[in-house]
Amino acid sequence: MNNDLDNTTKQEALKYHNKSGKPGKVSVIPTKPLSTQHDLSLAYSPGVAAPCLAIAKNPKAVYDYTAKSNYVAVISNGTAVLGLGNIGPLASKPVMEGKAVLFKRFADIDAIDIEVDTEDIEDFINAVRYLGPSWGGINLEDIRSPDCFIIEKRLNELMDIPVFHDDQHGTAVVVAAGIENALDIAEKKLENVKIIMNGSGAAGIACLEILKSMGAKNIVLCDKQGVIHKDRKEDMNKWKEKYAIDTKERSLLDAIKGADVFIGLSAKDVLSEEMLKSMGKDPIIFALANPDPEIRPEFAKSVRPDAIIATGRSDYNNQVNNVMGFPYIFRGALDVHATTINEEMKIAAADAIAKLAREPVPNEISAAYGGRKMSYGREYIIPTPFDPRLISMVSPAVAKAAVTSGVARKEIEDWNEYASQLKSRLAKALSTLNLLSSHT
Amino acid sequence: MNNDLDNTTKQEALKYHNKSGKPGKVSVIPTKPLSTQHDLSLAYSPGVAAPCLAIAKNPKAVYDYTAKSNYVAVISNGTAVLGLGNIGPLASKPVMEGKAVLFKRFADIDAIDIEVDTEDIEDFINAVRYLGPSWGGINLEDIRSPDCFIIEKRLNELMDIPVFHDDQHGTAVVVAAGIENALDIAEKKLENVKIIMNGSGAAGIACLEILKSMGAKNIVLCDKQGVIHKDRKEDMNKWKEKYAIDTKERSLLDAIKGADVFIGLSAKDVLSEEMLKSMGKDPIIFALANPDPEIRPEFAKSVRPDAIIATGRSDYNNQVNNVMGFPYIFRGALDVHATTINEEMKIAAADAIAKLAREPVPNEISAAYGGRKMSYGREYIIPTPFDPRLISMVSPAVAKAAVTSGVARKEIEDWNEYASQLKSRLAKALSTLNLLSSHT
Repeated sequence: MNNDLDNTTKQEALKYHNKSGKPGKVSVIPTKPLSTQHDLSLAYSPGVAAPCLAIAKNPKAVYDYTAKSNYVAVISNGTAVLGLGNIGPLASKPVMEGKAVLFKRFADIDAIDIEVDTEDIEDFINAVRYLGPSWGGINLEDIRSPDCFIIEKRLNELMDIPVFHDDQHGTAVVVAAGIENALDIAEKKLENVKIIMNGSGAAGIACLEILKSMGAKNIVLCDKQGVIHKDRKEDMNKWKEKYAIDTKERSLLDAIKGADVFIGLSAKDVLSEEMLKSMGKDPIIFALANPDPEIRPEFAKSVRPDAIIATGRSDYNNQVNNVMGFPYIFRGALDVHATTINEEMKIAAADAIAKLAREPVPNEISAAYGGRKMSYGREYIIPTPFDPRLISMVSPAVAKAAVTSGVARKEIEDWNEYASQLKSRLAKALSTLNLLSSHT
Repeated sequence: MNNDLDNTTKQEALKYHNKSGKPGKVSVIPTKPLSTQHDLSLAYSPGVAAPCLAIAKNPKAVYDYTAKSNYVAVISNGTAVLGLGNIGPLASKPVMEGKAVLFKRFADIDAIDIEVDTEDIEDFINAVRYLGPSWGGINLEDIRSPDCFIIEKRLNELMDIPVFHDDQHGTAVVVAAGIENALDIAEKKLENVKIIMNGSGAAGIACLEILKSMGAKNIVLCDKQGVIHKDRKEDMNKWKEKYAIDTKERSLLDAIKGADVFIGLSAKDVLSEEMLKSMGKDPIIFALANPDPEIRPEFAKSVRPDAIIATGRSDYNNQVNNVMGFPYIFRGALDVHATTINEEMKIAAADAIAKLAREPVPNEISAAYGGRKMSYGREYIIPTPFDPRLISMVSPAVAKAAVTSGVARKEIEDWNEYASQLKSRLAKALSTLNLLSSHT
């Protein structure tokens, strides 16, 4: 994230967050009428006893009579907030509210933000572990590494709803989708290529893991100190140790020679001209440091016209943006009452995003991007975040993977019907939002 | 609550909770536009950095740029859910969602439900204590006694936002308001009357406490085992011990002789004809067991035509209903960023509710109750729950008491202006809800 926002953007963003004197971005509204005493007697005492008793008798009925089936909590302790670092839970609240409303905007999911005021891993786990009945899933956000690995794993073991750290897996899913297509265009196979994963934080480790699950065999993990190899002692942890390899290569410069893929989740300008020149044919460069990538795309193109390049920025082609992942992954998981979001579901999401990029793009989508040319190829390996087809492509793929891999608690009878319902559901939600926004 | 709902109401309530196939009663919506890429760049990366940094620099800015100032969590573990008992957190969810939407309906507060899956007091406290940055206040709900006393006290000490157990204090505030007016009509003084408080659970203890704070000197606490006196050993706890008195009276029948006030938070039919006959002149009877009161009002009237009677039921005059308290108490507390809801604020709420009952009632209010006669007197000692004047009477009184007693973090410049803003704010919120309800 840009810490050096220009003053106009800064003022505009502050104003946006307190528009018409209404602070913040989320509001909670009833979905049922509450006009009369009779309405109240159904919503609350005495009528509410009926759904309570139905759930007490059959816990599954909670999905019929409460909002649980469409409810996600975005939970953070603010220890690693985008590019801002450890700004604490209170100051992270605008980000968490923002994430919550993205869930609504892209997948009609009701999401709330929860900020947890502790940096202690055990206290964090003990705060969240008992809150499961409230929601259908938990999106962990902006928790520092390696704490996030421990927290996510333990909460997933303790709870019967998905606990998904988006900084890890959301990023990994969209990166995997882009890599899949980039390799297809470069006519290379994941099994055979050498991948440099530069960055050993939450997202870096997660990208490495999903690519391994998908078949990658040769991944060199690097960080600021260089290659993570078996003899390295300094600045290690058990996650880095797990992926340390036996090699004589010590620096990024050593490792990148002849490599096919560079994935940077690191810092500005770490990919030098010399490094890029040393890479193999049709090098695939995912320069994801934000807002200043590991190498500027126009410079990379000038050095290696055969490169396939993606960044995290919306002003270049091939933007890796988590918003193509998390809303639809949760939508699919919620709709089959999944107990977790497993590797199969993440890979299904990546495959579906990759597949969508290979489809012809309707004019109205490219028009929204100023007529940008969008046809499958080096400049279009990933769909755009506002592509309305994402929901009906990604969510059914995720839901189906949940069913197949045995973590779904609900079946879906007709998958085509489900995909088309998703489309109309989102359209209806957006029309409601438009109505509200014109009313206020 | 009625456990024996008739079948029609039961079916209607179940249908209401899953109307148009949309389960539950709450939904979360964005309050800011999210239509374009530019909107997103303000709501999320990179623009969101501006409010984050503003809050990191000055924590008070959280009230300007996030929803904290209007956000309340309704938190329960489902151990004492209305008349249903310990049905657990999952089955309590419809009640908590119901409570959340009442906050919106009556005070334009955005409230969410949190169900905590533990009966252990320490685990409950450890789950909630770190969640403070998320909200402006916490409404604890339906937690069994005496656990609720410990939980509320500890959380209030640990957190810098109000933690308010509505079953205790919401009830106490409305009861106190009614008692104030009933005594006025009976021409008696709180200091001089003998009060029988029948019920030593959460609400009973809280009613006793607020009446003592307001000046009551002679209160006999009773429960199923009879009078709570200093020599009693069986079925005691430290809260009962605190209010045990030195007396030779042992049964409710002993104690009630000559008493001026009977407050029942106990069970059906415990107030007998003999007891009622033995009470002093103009006996004040608050028979609050629900749905079947301690004595039926029509029967009580036939025995003692001089009685002043209130119940918890909407089909009799003088309904004691918490909804006249909690939405407005929180509204006032939120609007001055109160750190707690103290005794002064509760008494201010009670006084304001009592005062409203003494005002002439506009025709449209009595019309909504089928033209029921509403003028201050024995049959109208408490306002009705749908009285739209409650917000502008109660919330300013609570906010003012917070400022005066030193627990406010924000001043209000013009109190008349504030009261009139509240009225138009609620009217606007209701018009939005009507719009939504006609849209869906």
